[in-house]
Amino acid sequence: MAAPDRIRLTAVWTDRIEEEMSQEKYQLEKGLDLLKKEFGEESVARAVAAVSTWQVEVPSWAFGSFGGGRFSGYTPPGAARTIEEKLDDAAFVHRLTGTAGSVSTHVLWDFSRDGLHADYSLAREVFEAARQRGLKLGSVNPTYFLSGFHRGSLTSPEEKTRQRAIEQTQIAGRIAAELGQGVLSLWFPDGSLYPGQVELRHAYERMRDGLVESLRDVPPTVTVLLEYKLFEPGTYSTVIPDWGTAFLLARHVGRQAGVLVDLGHHPHGTNIEQIVAVLRSEGLPGGFHFNTRYAADDDQAVEPNPELARIFYELLLEEGSGIFPENWTFMLDQASSRENRIEAILHSIDSLQTALARACLVNRKILHQFQRQDDIIAATRFFNQALLQADVRPVLYQARSSRDLPLDPVMAYKASGYQTRIEARRV
Amino acid sequence: MAAPDRIRLTAVWTDRIEEEMSQEKYQLEKGLDLLKKEFGEESVARAVAAVSTWQVEVPSWAFGSFGGGRFSGYTPPGAARTIEEKLDDAAFVHRLTGTAGSVSTHVLWDFSRDGLHADYSLAREVFEAARQRGLKLGSVNPTYFLSGFHRGSLTSPEEKTRQRAIEQTQIAGRIAAELGQGVLSLWFPDGSLYPGQVELRHAYERMRDGLVESLRDVPPTVTVLLEYKLFEPGTYSTVIPDWGTAFLLARHVGRQAGVLVDLGHHPHGTNIEQIVAVLRSEGLPGGFHFNTRYAADDDQAVEPNPELARIFYELLLEEGSGIFPENWTFMLDQASSRENRIEAILHSIDSLQTALARACLVNRKILHQFQRQDDIIAATRFFNQALLQADVRPVLYQARSSRDLPLDPVMAYKASGYQTRIEARRV
Amino acid sequence: MAAPDRIRLTAVWTDRIEEEMSQEKYQLEKGLDLLKKEFGEESVARAVAAVSTWQVEVPSWAFGSFGGGRFSGYTPPGAARTIEEKLDDAAFVHRLTGTAGSVSTHVLWDFSRDGLHADYSLAREVFEAARQRGLKLGSVNPTYFLSGFHRGSLTSPEEKTRQRAIEQTQIAGRIAAELGQGVLSLWFPDGSLYPGQVELRHAYERMRDGLVESLRDVPPTVTVLLEYKLFEPGTYSTVIPDWGTAFLLARHVGRQAGVLVDLGHHPHGTNIEQIVAVLRSEGLPGGFHFNTRYAADDDQAVEPNPELARIFYELLLEEGSGIFPENWTFMLDQASSRENRIEAILHSIDSLQTALARACLVNRKILHQFQRQDDIIAATRFFNQALLQADVRPVLYQARSSRDLPLDPVMAYKASGYQTRIEARRV
Amino acid sequence: MAAPDRIRLTAVWTDRIEEEMSQEKYQLEKGLDLLKKEFGEESVARAVAAVSTWQVEVPSWAFGSFGGGRFSGYTPPGAARTIEEKLDDAAFVHRLTGTAGSVSTHVLWDFSRDGLHADYSLAREVFEAARQRGLKLGSVNPTYFLSGFHRGSLTSPEEKTRQRAIEQTQIAGRIAAELGQGVLSLWFPDGSLYPGQVELRHAYERMRDGLVESLRDVPPTVTVLLEYKLFEPGTYSTVIPDWGTAFLLARHVGRQAGVLVDLGHHPHGTNIEQIVAVLRSEGLPGGFHFNTRYAADDDQAVEPNPELARIFYELLLEEGSGIFPENWTFMLDQASSRENRIEAILHSIDSLQTALARACLVNRKILHQFQRQDDIIAATRFFNQALLQADVRPVLYQARSSRDLPLDPVMAYKASGYQTRIEARRV
Repeated sequence: MAAPDRIRLTAVWTDRIEEEMSQEKYQLEKGLDLLKKEFGEESVARAVAAVSTWQVEVPSWAFGSFGGGRFSGYTPPGAARTIEEKLDDAAFVHRLTGTAGSVSTHVLWDFSRDGLHADYSLAREVFEAARQRGLKLGSVNPTYFLSGFHRGSLTSPEEKTRQRAIEQTQIAGRIAAELGQGVLSLWFPDGSLYPGQVELRHAYERMRDGLVESLRDVPPTVTVLLEYKLFEPGTYSTVIPDWGTAFLLARHVGRQAGVLVDLGHHPHGTNIEQIVAVLRSEGLPGGFHFNTRYAADDDQAVEPNPELARIFYELLLEEGSGIFPENWTFMLDQASSRENRIEAILHSIDSLQTALARACLVNRKILHQFQRQDDIIAATRFFNQALLQADVRPVLYQARSSRDLPLDPVMAYKASGYQTRIEARRV
Repeated sequence: MAAPDRIRLTAVWTDRIEEEMSQEKYQLEKGLDLLKKEFGEESVARAVAAVSTWQVEVPSWAFGSFGGGRFSGYTPPGAARTIEEKLDDAAFVHRLTGTAGSVSTHVLWDFSRDGLHADYSLAREVFEAARQRGLKLGSVNPTYFLSGFHRGSLTSPEEKTRQRAIEQTQIAGRIAAELGQGVLSLWFPDGSLYPGQVELRHAYERMRDGLVESLRDVPPTVTVLLEYKLFEPGTYSTVIPDWGTAFLLARHVGRQAGVLVDLGHHPHGTNIEQIVAVLRSEGLPGGFHFNTRYAADDDQAVEPNPELARIFYELLLEEGSGIFPENWTFMLDQASSRENRIEAILHSIDSLQTALARACLVNRKILHQFQRQDDIIAATRFFNQALLQADVRPVLYQARSSRDLPLDPVMAYKASGYQTRIEARRV
Repeated sequence: MAAPDRIRLTAVWTDRIEEEMSQEKYQLEKGLDLLKKEFGEESVARAVAAVSTWQVEVPSWAFGSFGGGRFSGYTPPGAARTIEEKLDDAAFVHRLTGTAGSVSTHVLWDFSRDGLHADYSLAREVFEAARQRGLKLGSVNPTYFLSGFHRGSLTSPEEKTRQRAIEQTQIAGRIAAELGQGVLSLWFPDGSLYPGQVELRHAYERMRDGLVESLRDVPPTVTVLLEYKLFEPGTYSTVIPDWGTAFLLARHVGRQAGVLVDLGHHPHGTNIEQIVAVLRSEGLPGGFHFNTRYAADDDQAVEPNPELARIFYELLLEEGSGIFPENWTFMLDQASSRENRIEAILHSIDSLQTALARACLVNRKILHQFQRQDDIIAATRFFNQALLQADVRPVLYQARSSRDLPLDPVMAYKASGYQTRIEARRV
Repeated sequence: MAAPDRIRLTAVWTDRIEEEMSQEKYQLEKGLDLLKKEFGEESVARAVAAVSTWQVEVPSWAFGSFGGGRFSGYTPPGAARTIEEKLDDAAFVHRLTGTAGSVSTHVLWDFSRDGLHADYSLAREVFEAARQRGLKLGSVNPTYFLSGFHRGSLTSPEEKTRQRAIEQTQIAGRIAAELGQGVLSLWFPDGSLYPGQVELRHAYERMRDGLVESLRDVPPTVTVLLEYKLFEPGTYSTVIPDWGTAFLLARHVGRQAGVLVDLGHHPHGTNIEQIVAVLRSEGLPGGFHFNTRYAADDDQAVEPNPELARIFYELLLEEGSGIFPENWTFMLDQASSRENRIEAILHSIDSLQTALARACLVNRKILHQFQRQDDIIAATRFFNQALLQADVRPVLYQARSSRDLPLDPVMAYKASGYQTRIEARRV
């Protein structure tokens, strides 16, 4: 971030940025030593390496005016208005983080002229626009929830609608294979508001048959991820409400299908890291939509909380190796209604890296000793020394510093003047 | 409903309506006997009387294109476009049910030219338009969640916004006193998405001070109801998340303030009827926003489930009397995104009457005998004979029949041709 | 129930019983007509037939002093002290209901001398004792949660404990095959209290391997049901927390394994009937542990609420046929800490029959018409006419009357003097 | 902890303890600097002071064989068998932490000969036994849930039981005033399992009247804390299910009554820190029962998670002062069924101190700047730098070191040989 132009920074910030930056350098120097002393040089090195290489996809829609819900109307200033502006923002996020080189897309938002049909040639244009900005297209999402899908997509009782959903899936599969990274990510808004509105068994079976039909001609190189969601827009039922249903459907689709976990799509009280453990144990392809939830399906920016660190702990392929399973895909899925979009994305990436670093620091060998001895308090304390107690920011600073990236991406964004420029241009 | 014009009724319905209607007459004759035999003539008479006289307010906004959430875009055909059309629909609902003579209003939706300020003269016009249709204005809702309130209303850090909220509250209070039924119903979207975004204690205190200031000059005849809500739009916090907070604030406001219960605004696992029992025991003014929730804050049409019957059981003032507390107000608050709006409202009214009839049939004297003897299974079985097992539709039919109302309001609506007419007119 | 001896009935009851009984006869005569008029003769006949033939297993442990939790110490008077007394009670329940001819057993409670090992010869004695009382042994439950299993059973890190669990499973399998109905029902208390206490992935894998090993030699005629449970005794994790995990493990076990649903083992907000719909659609063996929950895993007697009726609706094999899938097993699992045990069981059976009758009355043909037309309110109202509005007690009375059973089993129990007798004997 | 005798330490531990201890010294030296650089010398000093002086009560019952639930039977070795042994353990905990000088007691467990009545003279003996061990008696808990209270305590329909509850409360009040610290802590098991089992309104009113009567003669110097609990042992209802009800009852009791928050007594999704904020804003007396819950009311040892840090943030009286409100009492309430009891208590204390230290480090002045500017991401990141990111263990080490306490109490306990000794003696 050489010489960022600092225009219109508030009084608070001109001071703070200097202070924060000097502090981070200090923390980097001193803090890394502390971590090495506690967790060992090797673990820390592995954590730094993991943070340096791990990638997460950024959703194109997070930069636009999507979002809102029932009470908003408000869009934060500077929201991107076109796919090109979204790619600009994504490229700037990647420039600041080096972590977000792929953009996940929604076909009816990003590759459609009429909001009804996907257009391969538009996808090719977007692919090219991304390439020019140093970005790739990541996972491709058919858009089953816009105009005409109010009675559902693959489970709609209307043949025409179902057909439209099938065709869209097929085009999306082709885009994923030819222009993306070979990942097709499916979420269906199908469900019901009241008992009796739909026949639950028929809905499931129509979904199963529709999936099989839609995906028959999708190239076998494409990994299909099936997302589950407890509710919304359905309140009484959604057609794939839990990972068990997603898994069952994935079996019917075939070996290249797996389960997509979105952190906000569970009932309260669900142990999400355990779902990851089971899916990983079965060797299934999988994926994540990262965000934070306190209430319902909040879709807020990711918070670096201990649950997230435990999820990363389960994701790490070899014990403590910091190497992730090849058949898993990581995506942000957040739709901030109030806060600055780009800062929210940067914050999420930072949070995910924090969780990743924490997970890498757990020494499984020692942990397993405690576990074997039924030394319960020692085990949980030792586990949480990495996941809750240690300050892992120096790991992130080290990883960034070695790649010539700014130590703190949010701070660097504030200092960059980018926000001022987009607010001026996008009115 | 003499001679409804039956235009464009689907094939399903022309048959069904005849069948349903004949059946309902049969049920009315035979079913009422069964109820009298089981619960006694007196109880049944009381239930019929209660259903005949009980009134619930219908919200103006339920008839419009409000609603949606993140995935819709769909509005059911025939949605009302203006306050006049909303009043037309409300009047038709009242004509079919005799139960919904008051319309609750939102000041910025119903009494505003710019969506920013309430306009007393407009309220007077709406009052007049309602009067011409045989309707009254019911509870008045300031609208704190439209343009400019994204940082909150009474807790906004912006003095100007706070002032606007105060002024709106004052005008709404005046409308409630002079044009309505003396009920001011307040819901605040104030809250936060992330920990640290607002200082929780300050938010509470600003709300407390803002309420006191706003309501100082509201006539003492006006009952103020404070609505609580677990989440949305805030995800991490909302300023009045539970009835305890609403109650505390009501105390600061003074004796004419009470608590407004919305069925969708609780965490899962909450015993809502017990909240009613406590509020009733304390003699506090209160109110209800009726709807059904399975998932989050669904705002779906009311279902006649046992929870609702238990709530009505707690609401009945004298034991089994069927007489409601004078200082409670009953309102629908639903915003159907998919189904026919008017049918959804009629269905809700029918469901509420069902619950009311069930609650009236419980013989408390016998129930208390079982309770005193610790005869647990007998007590719960006896309780549920009325609340779950009996068929109380004959009570509703009797109440309607005696008032010359159609036995089944939804069926009568289908037969009326009203829907066809509004679909033709409102394009 | 000819000439029940009525000893020590409280004053309340001597009157009430006469009154209730006369009323039920009246309801039977008149109420059945109403149901036939509304739902058709055929549906009602089907419902009567279904209620007449449907069977549910009663757990031996429900009659004993099991239960309690942290605060009790209280056992209702008359609790059975031995397996023979439990069988006496079960036989009396069956005599009153004609519905509960099989008793599910727990091997370390019912077939063990030391509380540590299962004893086949004891099982044979219990089988004989049951036979003499006109009862069969139903599903057989290994008991993995008593002494020595505090570190888990099949996932215990202690080889010896794991081996003991395996052996117990094998004996239980033999008992199920030779003395029972060929159903082995497995619930594992394995889990953890704190993050880091166990390695989640290892626990899952040990469970998988342990199951495969345990069940290798169980006769292929035995259906294995895997129960899942969200929490307890584990608070942070349980090894099979949801139906997805149970399903995955069942796959590893093989075709004769299925999923056991206990109504209290889900997070709040779970649509349980949809789980049934999916399992049924996949043709998987399955089973139910019926009880009611409001709070956590309450294990209270079954309440005839609409959720239960919707579950039965999904269970019915052919559309509206009232015939259940052959590969599903139905069991009560309740452990009442406060109320009369036998009344609680009778009440549960009555509630289940209520739900079954309701489910049989839904006319799917008409329902599907509404669904196809997207007539949402009509569909949910029509569905709930059977599931919520109608009074189906006459169906139960008719089914019982035709089998010479008392119309109301709880009332008949009160009148029978059985409770007085066991209270005198079991001190 | 000079020269602890290290008997029977497992191989794992003899190595680990050396390593951990050397590391902690290193962290203390280097880590404190990092914290000072980031949060300022003053904040860190305040945090150290707060951790040094803050006290939490330890419950006598945590050391005994209490606990279990439905599946256990297991008690960790070394459990205390008498109140004297419990005091021994508490004294050792206090010796290692300097933080737990008061023991909270349950009158029927600790001051009763028959388990039915409290005995003041026994309380005096326990007081003396505590004094000899350098301990005080802290909050006093009447025990309303043992033998004879199965129909409830103050709400029991049995006059005799109610009277017994009243008398017990009065004696407990006298003990609190004369032998304790003037805090009476009340939890009631009253509730119901089924709808209709009790009349909710009557239960509330009997509780209100019973409380007023019980507490009339309790000295005005005694602070009464009313605990609420969502469920258990009641499943359908508990008489004080939420803080709103506790608050209402406290008002009836009078000015010296407040609300007791137990972390496990809320529905999922409740923002507990906000409850604290509201109670603190109203200046009400209050208290805490600390423990951790993932599932229901788990009563596990405290985990130093961010929610806990946010709670401490709200508790701090003056902004960032580290001084707590005088009218609040802090207690552990945990009942570990599996892990070592004393380690679990030490771990909880350590976790609470961690949360306290984190809360002290938040610079409210800067936070408020971000809040005022609606700089949402900056605000939450800044907040979480203290509450989630920083490593505050050096604060704890500094506070302990300055008081000549072992840096890590759990490690010191392992090294002390205390566990070996009690396991030998308590068989």
